[in-house]
Amino acid sequence: MSHKGQTSLKAMYRPEGLIDFCTAIFAGEGLTDADARLVADSLVHANLRGVDSHGVTRVPIYVKRLQKDVVEKEPNIQVLSEARSTVLLDGGNGMGAVVATRAMSEGLRKMRESGSASVAVRNNNHVGAGAYFAAKATAEGAIVFIYSNAPPTMAPWHARTPYFGTNPYCFSVPARKHPNIVLDMATSVVARGKIIVAAERGEAIPPGWAIDEEGRETTDAQAALDGCVLPFGGPKGSGIALMIDILGGVLSGAGFGRGIGDLYRELSVPQNVGSFIQLINIARFMPMERFLDRIDTMIDEIKALTPVPGVNEVMLPGELEARTEAIRSTDGIPLPEDVESMLMEYGKDTGFSLSECRV
Amino acid sequence: MSHKGQTSLKAMYRPEGLIDFCTAIFAGEGLTDADARLVADSLVHANLRGVDSHGVTRVPIYVKRLQKDVVEKEPNIQVLSEARSTVLLDGGNGMGAVVATRAMSEGLRKMRESGSASVAVRNNNHVGAGAYFAAKATAEGAIVFIYSNAPPTMAPWHARTPYFGTNPYCFSVPARKHPNIVLDMATSVVARGKIIVAAERGEAIPPGWAIDEEGRETTDAQAALDGCVLPFGGPKGSGIALMIDILGGVLSGAGFGRGIGDLYRELSVPQNVGSFIQLINIARFMPMERFLDRIDTMIDEIKALTPVPGVNEVMLPGELEARTEAIRSTDGIPLPEDVESMLMEYGKDTGFSLSECRV
Repeated sequence: MSHKGQTSLKAMYRPEGLIDFCTAIFAGEGLTDADARLVADSLVHANLRGVDSHGVTRVPIYVKRLQKDVVEKEPNIQVLSEARSTVLLDGGNGMGAVVATRAMSEGLRKMRESGSASVAVRNNNHVGAGAYFAAKATAEGAIVFIYSNAPPTMAPWHARTPYFGTNPYCFSVPARKHPNIVLDMATSVVARGKIIVAAERGEAIPPGWAIDEEGRETTDAQAALDGCVLPFGGPKGSGIALMIDILGGVLSGAGFGRGIGDLYRELSVPQNVGSFIQLINIARFMPMERFLDRIDTMIDEIKALTPVPGVNEVMLPGELEARTEAIRSTDGIPLPEDVESMLMEYGKDTGFSLSECRV
Repeated sequence: MSHKGQTSLKAMYRPEGLIDFCTAIFAGEGLTDADARLVADSLVHANLRGVDSHGVTRVPIYVKRLQKDVVEKEPNIQVLSEARSTVLLDGGNGMGAVVATRAMSEGLRKMRESGSASVAVRNNNHVGAGAYFAAKATAEGAIVFIYSNAPPTMAPWHARTPYFGTNPYCFSVPARKHPNIVLDMATSVVARGKIIVAAERGEAIPPGWAIDEEGRETTDAQAALDGCVLPFGGPKGSGIALMIDILGGVLSGAGFGRGIGDLYRELSVPQNVGSFIQLINIARFMPMERFLDRIDTMIDEIKALTPVPGVNEVMLPGELEARTEAIRSTDGIPLPEDVESMLMEYGKDTGFSLSECRV
């Protein structure tokens, strides 16, 4: 088989193997074993669901920030104040997955006691895909919202310069017959990564994705990168991004607007990301079995709708990712060659062999 | 001045006068004085803010439903279950504004005790503009979300037939120097009313607003009316509409999907609208003064962004409505002639004179 053939086929990796391998990398950078495993698990979980942009491809930047001491290896995560159904948490500038896991655990404790719970988090870092943390909540019978703000890359509606991040919105609900509903999305029209790819290929981008430096709508990918990405759905999506920055940033005491440090370009300052979690205990409203009947009925009804021409099937949020997870759990996670080489390089001192993680 | 001149100028009405006038209409239909005033106040509040589609123009359909006994005049609104921060409410098929006011009051009570609160409501009716109820919450130092589902008129992403309503999303946050932030929006790209107007004028509609009966994107307004309106922002807005139907409908035990009765066309069955309110007590997270400083700073920063070409000013959600409210509070509410005649007709037995309500 030619070198080129290998690239296009991609080697397949066992999820558990990848988790062990990445755990060793993060533990080597000074995280406790438990925290290292948590970060590794959250990244590989994204790969399992097919959200490769938030998977192990983030290892280098996470390692770099740990090496620059701009993220705390053993953060002092503190409850700053709490009420029966609220918690204000200082993330101690810890790794996002570590802080979010603690925030979720504080929130679930409050929710069990009080029926619902609201957790605001300051002094956090890049959290990664919300779906990983949402799964802990739905497993406990919760409906969950997770919001985090992000470095400024997106213009508010009618502005020409970035102020909001692509502030991710994550909403999840347990189902039974069907996969859980998981709406885990950026509040931008499109991930900036897709514009970078178009620019590299010299391709145009669709109208409505971005504006150029002068604030004019553009289909020129390079002009879009010099300008900025737009919120999804115009003023409405802009309002949702604003909401996330208010709950995650303003209310928590974290950074907001241009006050969030860039993950990649600012390696000397903490990000001060802000997050917000809302948990609702389903069983306080109706017996869980009845709720699951109703959700499955709703999903059945939506799946039975006739799709528009050219589309085979009406899909629910998270359905495609659940299918990918089922496949990759068995067949393994495909990694492109550049990600393989990167992992080998970062893992070379751990004593673990990446090739032994192959399926 | 010619008759035509008067039409285009529109007569101006004192808000208090209109509230008294509409209160008399609803009291005449059997609502208690307090409830009649509440419904009237909520409608005129929408007119004050310039949201005339949700103002006194709704009087006829509200009256019709009361006359058909399909809405309870003196509803038995019941707390079905509660925890420290949750309430499940049966709206007793009461007028939407009456039920929503009670739900808000139960929620605020829980929020004061516990820090945040979640209220789900079944057996509700058309609630009207969420901003009216949100204002009660922000006045008590809350960040508030209000969701209601609605009769099916909107296709989920990639489906060709209606399943969701235009499920309104309302989010509001108090500010100090600036008007409160009030994001009060349908989750459809556009109100169906705008498509009706375009069809009447024989005008085309922009692509992306609606699909025809075969599920094809259309710019033909009549074909759009025969087809259905689309969620804002494609799959993302569709996900938000789904979220609202789950919290408002599935979790509360109300109708969901095609289970919501049409306000106008189904005059023999209760709507069984479902609503959900989330309240967050700001003071449990930081001193209110500090929060207001931070929100005003954020708004200052957004207002200072350079607008895109052709736009004079970057606006925050609710800012335009707040300006309109300031103007109309002083100058009065303009009513078109057809709305004037309708009100006169509906109010003819009340002993109140509409013309005496003019500025």
